[in-house]
Amino acid sequence: MAQNIPKKQMAQVIEKTGGPVQFKEIDVQQPGPDEVLVNVKYSGVCHTDLHAVNGDWPLPTKLPLVGGHEGAGVVVARGELVNEIEIGDHVGIKWINGTCLACDFCQQSDEPLCAKALLSGYTVDGSFQQYAIAKAAHVARLHKDIPLDAVAPVLCAGITVYKGLKESGVRPGQTVAIVGAGGGLGSLALQYAKAMGLRSIAIDTGDEKKDMCVNQLGASAFVDFAASKNIVKDVQAATEDGLGPHAVILVAVSEKPFQQAAEYVRPRGTVVCIGLPAGAYLKAPVFESVIKMVTIRGSYVGNRRDSAEALDFFRRGLIKAPFKVVGLSELQSVYDLMHKGQIAGRYVLDTSK
Amino acid sequence: MAQNIPKKQMAQVIEKTGGPVQFKEIDVQQPGPDEVLVNVKYSGVCHTDLHAVNGDWPLPTKLPLVGGHEGAGVVVARGELVNEIEIGDHVGIKWINGTCLACDFCQQSDEPLCAKALLSGYTVDGSFQQYAIAKAAHVARLHKDIPLDAVAPVLCAGITVYKGLKESGVRPGQTVAIVGAGGGLGSLALQYAKAMGLRSIAIDTGDEKKDMCVNQLGASAFVDFAASKNIVKDVQAATEDGLGPHAVILVAVSEKPFQQAAEYVRPRGTVVCIGLPAGAYLKAPVFESVIKMVTIRGSYVGNRRDSAEALDFFRRGLIKAPFKVVGLSELQSVYDLMHKGQIAGRYVLDTSK
Amino acid sequence: MAQNIPKKQMAQVIEKTGGPVQFKEIDVQQPGPDEVLVNVKYSGVCHTDLHAVNGDWPLPTKLPLVGGHEGAGVVVARGELVNEIEIGDHVGIKWINGTCLACDFCQQSDEPLCAKALLSGYTVDGSFQQYAIAKAAHVARLHKDIPLDAVAPVLCAGITVYKGLKESGVRPGQTVAIVGAGGGLGSLALQYAKAMGLRSIAIDTGDEKKDMCVNQLGASAFVDFAASKNIVKDVQAATEDGLGPHAVILVAVSEKPFQQAAEYVRPRGTVVCIGLPAGAYLKAPVFESVIKMVTIRGSYVGNRRDSAEALDFFRRGLIKAPFKVVGLSELQSVYDLMHKGQIAGRYVLDTSK
Amino acid sequence: MAQNIPKKQMAQVIEKTGGPVQFKEIDVQQPGPDEVLVNVKYSGVCHTDLHAVNGDWPLPTKLPLVGGHEGAGVVVARGELVNEIEIGDHVGIKWINGTCLACDFCQQSDEPLCAKALLSGYTVDGSFQQYAIAKAAHVARLHKDIPLDAVAPVLCAGITVYKGLKESGVRPGQTVAIVGAGGGLGSLALQYAKAMGLRSIAIDTGDEKKDMCVNQLGASAFVDFAASKNIVKDVQAATEDGLGPHAVILVAVSEKPFQQAAEYVRPRGTVVCIGLPAGAYLKAPVFESVIKMVTIRGSYVGNRRDSAEALDFFRRGLIKAPFKVVGLSELQSVYDLMHKGQIAGRYVLDTSK
Repeated sequence: MAQNIPKKQMAQVIEKTGGPVQFKEIDVQQPGPDEVLVNVKYSGVCHTDLHAVNGDWPLPTKLPLVGGHEGAGVVVARGELVNEIEIGDHVGIKWINGTCLACDFCQQSDEPLCAKALLSGYTVDGSFQQYAIAKAAHVARLHKDIPLDAVAPVLCAGITVYKGLKESGVRPGQTVAIVGAGGGLGSLALQYAKAMGLRSIAIDTGDEKKDMCVNQLGASAFVDFAASKNIVKDVQAATEDGLGPHAVILVAVSEKPFQQAAEYVRPRGTVVCIGLPAGAYLKAPVFESVIKMVTIRGSYVGNRRDSAEALDFFRRGLIKAPFKVVGLSELQSVYDLMHKGQIAGRYVLDTSK
Repeated sequence: MAQNIPKKQMAQVIEKTGGPVQFKEIDVQQPGPDEVLVNVKYSGVCHTDLHAVNGDWPLPTKLPLVGGHEGAGVVVARGELVNEIEIGDHVGIKWINGTCLACDFCQQSDEPLCAKALLSGYTVDGSFQQYAIAKAAHVARLHKDIPLDAVAPVLCAGITVYKGLKESGVRPGQTVAIVGAGGGLGSLALQYAKAMGLRSIAIDTGDEKKDMCVNQLGASAFVDFAASKNIVKDVQAATEDGLGPHAVILVAVSEKPFQQAAEYVRPRGTVVCIGLPAGAYLKAPVFESVIKMVTIRGSYVGNRRDSAEALDFFRRGLIKAPFKVVGLSELQSVYDLMHKGQIAGRYVLDTSK
Repeated sequence: MAQNIPKKQMAQVIEKTGGPVQFKEIDVQQPGPDEVLVNVKYSGVCHTDLHAVNGDWPLPTKLPLVGGHEGAGVVVARGELVNEIEIGDHVGIKWINGTCLACDFCQQSDEPLCAKALLSGYTVDGSFQQYAIAKAAHVARLHKDIPLDAVAPVLCAGITVYKGLKESGVRPGQTVAIVGAGGGLGSLALQYAKAMGLRSIAIDTGDEKKDMCVNQLGASAFVDFAASKNIVKDVQAATEDGLGPHAVILVAVSEKPFQQAAEYVRPRGTVVCIGLPAGAYLKAPVFESVIKMVTIRGSYVGNRRDSAEALDFFRRGLIKAPFKVVGLSELQSVYDLMHKGQIAGRYVLDTSK
Repeated sequence: MAQNIPKKQMAQVIEKTGGPVQFKEIDVQQPGPDEVLVNVKYSGVCHTDLHAVNGDWPLPTKLPLVGGHEGAGVVVARGELVNEIEIGDHVGIKWINGTCLACDFCQQSDEPLCAKALLSGYTVDGSFQQYAIAKAAHVARLHKDIPLDAVAPVLCAGITVYKGLKESGVRPGQTVAIVGAGGGLGSLALQYAKAMGLRSIAIDTGDEKKDMCVNQLGASAFVDFAASKNIVKDVQAATEDGLGPHAVILVAVSEKPFQQAAEYVRPRGTVVCIGLPAGAYLKAPVFESVIKMVTIRGSYVGNRRDSAEALDFFRRGLIKAPFKVVGLSELQSVYDLMHKGQIAGRYVLDTSK
């Protein structure tokens, strides 16, 4: 069924924990009965990829490993059981590469919680190569009018913040505070919030970020956490009735903003924790949390439905994620910039270069 | 409309913070237009009453103060606007004595979160007197076949644990762990869990409590936290599939059990925090809480609907709360026992003595 | 507390069922302890008012009766128990004038289902007078930047369609079909749908309505029920994947559109019925409704929370309701136009004329 | 991997629409990569099987066809992709034999709504044979302590009523009316309701059924629809407050009980329609349905999670389904009895006979 598929391809390979990544020629794999082979055109680079290189998360990676979990491309081959996807379809490879589809969690649409989940660019080879394997039931379907470079960062960052907003339980017309609103995840969160009919309070620092949040990304208000003398009061004052936002999305958690969030969130409100700083703890005073009936919730990546919904908002032109394209061969230099904290916006790799 | 109501009555009065309570004669009050006057027959004694005497909570009490918020009695007078309640009706006076019924929270059935809530035996006089005032819209309605002494402890402890179980989101057939299952709140929680079609894992210590939890209160399993070498593993092993309980109810929170709960709860599970130890913090690792999508939620007292439902389970004979009756005049000695930690079950005061 | 309140005022009074209404001088009433007296500035005219005149609904009206339930005005006096509202506050008088606030339904925020609900302009005097009485806990709070004439129709029509959209359970990004989209309720529904992040399919007839729905009110698609040869197919084709809208809002129910709605709604979708044609029946085939797991739901007026939310969308400038102002004295001529079906948009009465 | 699997087996085969079924020898099939081969030990007989023989439903069957969708047996072979199920595991074959696991509905745990669903004994061969094929991800897992004969009827009837009760949204302590409570589905529904902490009103006719419902199956009340002079009043009177049950489960729908259900259900209540009488219509008055905010909902079969939950209640001994075992060879005579309406309880076929 597949045609014109080369035997060899270029890929960025991690041979041992700690790196570096090596740009080299490797074999192209064959899809299993329930898999597709995707000709990756573009792949975004995420901080998680750097964690995979460094091996500094509690979960060990496959070795040698091809990283990458924001791959957008074209299906070039498929296994015998695959009949929902055609050769030539555009698809996205996400962090969740595949799951068992049969356990308790898969049965209740919580496939990211599947104990047998395969993680792209972590426990299975990912999208930093020209031809990648993915489970057919899990690839994201991309309409052909979606540009494959621009969508790459949405496949991880976009879906994740959209999921967090859904988990917050906030309804149209209500208010959500985004902590770290001016960053990569935060700026997507503000746009999704607006598209979902929510009002948002952007929390970050600096006039440049304020301008971006309020004038470009649709934030209803901005609180500068560095300039504020009382962040709890200032966030609450930014809501109509002074009672605080209905939810808080923490995209750049550290212990301090977390504790503050539990204080300024509205009674009955929800604090959603998305970021994953190493070794951090959620912490909130018992007395106030009980008296105010606060909910604190961890939100991981989206399931397949969340993913399709998040991509649909993007397709409708409601979400813009700034990105810069460089060749796949330049991945190491992107990691170097990332390591130095010199990244603004998302880098996207062109696998043809 | 009212008849045979004395001008004077006996009450237990706190004149100044720190106590002691004084058993003395005071005036009987008149109900306002939206209030009822209740001839309290029995009143339970709760740890919160001791906090009111000691003044060791962040919120100041009224002074002088008549404590008590588990009062069961008979309506003897009512204001001009009251037409839902008849003279002679049996009612319960709860922690929430009245609220504005008009704010955002009251409008969404979260009247315990009303900023103007009146708290029985704390910000308004409570049930440690023979005739107490309560807002008509807030008193609990008691069918006349309900014994007024036995129901007293249900009016606070029963409603609170029932609310916590509802807030956990657990459905019939699923499993809830009760931390502190052998105590006053815990033993009620086990019975409510059973009546609600839930399975329960009782967590406490000692053979006596194990026997009570499993053989009398319907627990499906018992984990002795003192005997266990690995409480996380043992609690998870007590569930059918080893993945842990769908929810955890913490009725006796301290930081350690709280952190453990976030570890052994099932992915997507909920940890409900009810207890109010002074100065304690909720604490859970960010990484695991996010990856498992754990929800942590504070649950305060029930609203009026929760209260009616909790009382209905009691009325049907599904909930037994052991109690001991002594005279209203003996309140100080009950506090003394409480202070020494020598209370088992609930003390109920007979206001006629 | 009240000042400058006249003893007499002008009002439109129905002396007997069948009408006509009489413009005459009547007494100004005094508010009870839990009531406010509102100086009505403007009042919208709704079809329900005509039903009240005609007495053709199963429920009998008060007689003599002052109609009207879309009154916007200023509080000029309040009862002794009222402390949430100040003299001078702007408020709205809605269909639900007051409820017991104590029954099962009131306890669960379903106060429109209260068996003792007082209905403005139906079982109690309404807003077709200069000074009207309302229960303080039930009046809608209006920010002072809201124009009192423009808001009048929102107090009934706007809240009702917003409630219907909430009851549909549709989430941002999903699609709702509005049957009767070009009418008074429908055009509000389209605007609320857009503000809530929903996509909408307008169903109505004619090029003028098509233009209005798509170009002014934000509909994503338009289906002309008169021009369509297969309305079920056409509505489904108007959704991205051809599976039909997630919900259908029926603002102008008759049996035929209702049955069609159950056919074209998406599997697991919801058909919300709002309109109240006399003697009509909901009707849907059992086999298809079961196999597709369709939900059919009646939606009445909003509760107080829904009302506040609907008004907040209006205040933010997201909802425009075209209206024409005439004097209170001209009510009968408005009824005459209504009777002839010659009303486009909403009539609002100025009580000073 | 498979062993001792014969090439030939006995089966009941429908050669042409209208029947009769023929007991004959046919080939044993091989499982595909994502399938298992199940040695069916017992299979229940359902009315749907008779519809498949008669071909009187709108959906055409496969031909020739082996019917049956309540098969309980042992896995004897599996495809190469199957690693969640071991040879020797006990499993159940349900109405939903397989689905795509990738469409919108499968993604949201509504796999029974999958447009590509394979239906056991209808669009694919079912369990009226000794060796049947099923998709591994869809078979029900049966603990080895579950008797394979007794569980057979639960695989369809039990799961279906459990699903209906879940869809009703009723919470523990609330009341559900079961229409047709004394029948096969109804008697299971009563038991599930009890296990879920619900109260139930059994609606059926005759003293024998009354005795069974109340004394054996746990109904809280019984209303004899034939003896009742006013069924709406009698059902409402059977609830504590006279306002009617929170939900109604219609397991034997015809138009009349359906309309009655919408009348006696509590305001805000839900009427769940499960039965599938040919050509019947749901019908309810618009005015009352809107004013009472009634929900009417079709409920089809359970998804995999519902199925696992329903089986878990059975395994715990809380559900008893009376059944009679006869040989597979006797299927036609069971159909004959069914056709005459002479079946009480469920027939289960022993495939070894």
